[in-house]
Amino acid sequence: MMRFGFDIGGTNIAAGIIDENNRLIVKDSVKFPRGEGNEAVIAACAGLYRSILANAAISENDIKGVGVAVPGSVLPQKGIVVDAHNLGFHHTPLAAVLSDALHKPVELINDADAATLAEQKIGSLVGTSTSVMITIGTGIGGGLIVNGELFRGGRGNGTEPGHMVLRNDGRLCTCGVKGCAEVYCSATRLCKDGEAFGKPTAKDVIEAAKAGNEQALALFREYVDDFGSYIASIVNLLDPERIAIGGGVSGAGSFLLDPLREDVARKCFFETCPEIVVASAGNDAGIIGAGLIVS
Amino acid sequence: MMRFGFDIGGTNIAAGIIDENNRLIVKDSVKFPRGEGNEAVIAACAGLYRSILANAAISENDIKGVGVAVPGSVLPQKGIVVDAHNLGFHHTPLAAVLSDALHKPVELINDADAATLAEQKIGSLVGTSTSVMITIGTGIGGGLIVNGELFRGGRGNGTEPGHMVLRNDGRLCTCGVKGCAEVYCSATRLCKDGEAFGKPTAKDVIEAAKAGNEQALALFREYVDDFGSYIASIVNLLDPERIAIGGGVSGAGSFLLDPLREDVARKCFFETCPEIVVASAGNDAGIIGAGLIVS
Repeated sequence: MMRFGFDIGGTNIAAGIIDENNRLIVKDSVKFPRGEGNEAVIAACAGLYRSILANAAISENDIKGVGVAVPGSVLPQKGIVVDAHNLGFHHTPLAAVLSDALHKPVELINDADAATLAEQKIGSLVGTSTSVMITIGTGIGGGLIVNGELFRGGRGNGTEPGHMVLRNDGRLCTCGVKGCAEVYCSATRLCKDGEAFGKPTAKDVIEAAKAGNEQALALFREYVDDFGSYIASIVNLLDPERIAIGGGVSGAGSFLLDPLREDVARKCFFETCPEIVVASAGNDAGIIGAGLIVS
Repeated sequence: MMRFGFDIGGTNIAAGIIDENNRLIVKDSVKFPRGEGNEAVIAACAGLYRSILANAAISENDIKGVGVAVPGSVLPQKGIVVDAHNLGFHHTPLAAVLSDALHKPVELINDADAATLAEQKIGSLVGTSTSVMITIGTGIGGGLIVNGELFRGGRGNGTEPGHMVLRNDGRLCTCGVKGCAEVYCSATRLCKDGEAFGKPTAKDVIEAAKAGNEQALALFREYVDDFGSYIASIVNLLDPERIAIGGGVSGAGSFLLDPLREDVARKCFFETCPEIVVASAGNDAGIIGAGLIVS
């Protein structure tokens, strides 16, 4: 049977239908009704669900269930969004409420976990049993595959790899702790440090570094050193087979990945280093992963 | 059936018999024949094996198999010790050679993994499905329980949690990388920094801090901050149910654990913090864990 996936973000609600071969066969999106309360979010989701089914001429009876990816912490067994700041969800029983509206079983997943699951099923982590997805954006998200399955945290809280400490007592993270990996390895870090010399986006910094700008190169090298140490930390703890890097910064391709691989190889405690690759499930990974969580 | 465990260290070879209830019923040890070559190590192990069986009046037929814990990296499936510097083992096919000498199947395990397995079966990690053991000594060792089983690394290399990076670009670790957790959270760190004010052992530093010595207190607080960030990194990645702290430093008890728990709670990204407890399987955890690995 087919499965339906939602990827709810603070800007848009994207959704689509996944077929038996884990392919996204139809998708659409609506604006996230910011500031209009949870009922408006549920109504927007229900409207999108019905319009996608109608436009694709697919019956509700052909949908096995609904998965929902949210940018925040979830307790999947309880169907609760503990905290998704950008959506205004705090201890929200989203699964039950949405299930009532759609008359379907609803399962929740953190958006980074959804992306990880999509990578394992159709992307760059296919074939791995223990692997890691790290998404570099404004912050850092990520997910773990352990023993062939998405690892949802030992207590069901998921994983928050952006808040591993990389430079203890360093720069303050938005979470209130000093020195989190997110402070040093996110795209935000490149923007902030690039501003000082007129390169206020990660892309600007990387382009300037490629062109040989010395300040940009110095920043880029420090970024690679931080990022390499961060990946090496995960490698030395979990000894994964493969690490996929997603998010805008991964678009730098081999200009970033080649020095990153060298840096991680130097810091990896084991004789051989796991593969480091660019994530390949694409922008719809959230929808797909949400659909894939339907059991 | 009973199982036989060896804990081979650079000073002593300890060994014993584990009964059906995971209890160590008899043990003994001999000096590690340092510098005498691998054949001497095998001969010492075989002698110890036979004398323990003879003294306990237990027949070889009652021993199901033999587990061997070594301080280094192993490839359990291949039965190879990749590197155990203190034992002089480098790509040593220890399982096959020892199996020939004892006429029993032999399985290898890293000593920190053995200690972790012992904690899970008879110690402070009993009842957990996802948990972490961290042993603080000259360096840092540790092990992970994931989904109820000892996690032996995604590629079979085990885990090296002491080489997660805690202060990137910080002090140089013995492994050649700057800022590893081991540099800041091992007992060695307390010794080195304590030397500056005449407290050259971890115990000295902790006793002086307890007595209110200001330099010792300042060092102890910085140590707790580093150790807390290190534990928080693991917590934020794996969301474990419980973390056991072993090694001499854990003997400081609540004087260390109370501020450590507070520090981790502050740095933990999740709403609640996992339990942090002192390891309880004791000095024989290596022998017991080695025996427990016998399948």
